[in-house]
Amino acid sequence: MSATDLLTLYRTRGLRIATAESCTGGMVSAAITDIAGSSTVFERGFVTYTNEAKIQMLGVLPATLDAYGAVSEQVAQEMAEGALRHSAADVAVSITGIAGPGGSEFKPEGRVCFGLATRTGTHTETVEFGALGRANVRRESVQKAIALLISAANQ
Amino acid sequence: MSATDLLTLYRTRGLRIATAESCTGGMVSAAITDIAGSSTVFERGFVTYTNEAKIQMLGVLPATLDAYGAVSEQVAQEMAEGALRHSAADVAVSITGIAGPGGSEFKPEGRVCFGLATRTGTHTETVEFGALGRANVRRESVQKAIALLISAANQ
Repeated sequence: MSATDLLTLYRTRGLRIATAESCTGGMVSAAITDIAGSSTVFERGFVTYTNEAKIQMLGVLPATLDAYGAVSEQVAQEMAEGALRHSAADVAVSITGIAGPGGSEFKPEGRVCFGLATRTGTHTETVEFGALGRANVRRESVQKAIALLISAANQ
Repeated sequence: MSATDLLTLYRTRGLRIATAESCTGGMVSAAITDIAGSSTVFERGFVTYTNEAKIQMLGVLPATLDAYGAVSEQVAQEMAEGALRHSAADVAVSITGIAGPGGSEFKPEGRVCFGLATRTGTHTETVEFGALGRANVRRESVQKAIALLISAANQ
């Protein structure tokens, strides 16, 4: 499903979206707002590329970053919940991953963690996209984020 | 010049960027973070699509929105200055415009206002892109924002 389907679904349900993006750097919000009339559905977006931005804009705990690293389901959860708390949205999606090139000692290139927060709870998920290249990992992550948002509205 | 040139220039100067986007919805931050290594230069981004987001995330004054409307150099200025104040960046660019389709009674489709804030002052500018279509107005606005960021580093 596309961002157009997403908008139609959210508009029908009267739901609004917030995004909290690290490795996708604004691509999810750009995809959603690419569609005319998205202002009724897209509430706001946080592009938190640095740890400081994750802490200050979303309330991610420094202890969580220290313990698990920025690319972790724990941080994805706090990002999504922070986006929900700091917005008027009903659903927030978060994305934090290693788009590449290169991974780290413990985390491979292409690992992306997602969070999906609603007023009733938070779901987290890790996808190993593999070393597809930076642009492809980012593009696939946008598709995954849109799919998660659609799943939240269909629950 | 491209986002790659922008990153090289800012890295050389030791400067960091924040973005405050309305009609481009995250496309400027997405373009900058498309490049590997952008984390040393890109500090954070605010996607403030609604008036509430502009007020709450950037400190835009409700009175300014009431008096001039969201698509105005006055609001662009407050968005850019707010992004600078609410980040650790040295330079902030803001974009607020009517990507279309359609304009309003007083403002034509394709009008986009930009703000460029540094620690020494703020520059604002309006560009009338005309009714090029939503995707083209957004794409041209990204290019203009990148050009403004480059000009700030060259001053």
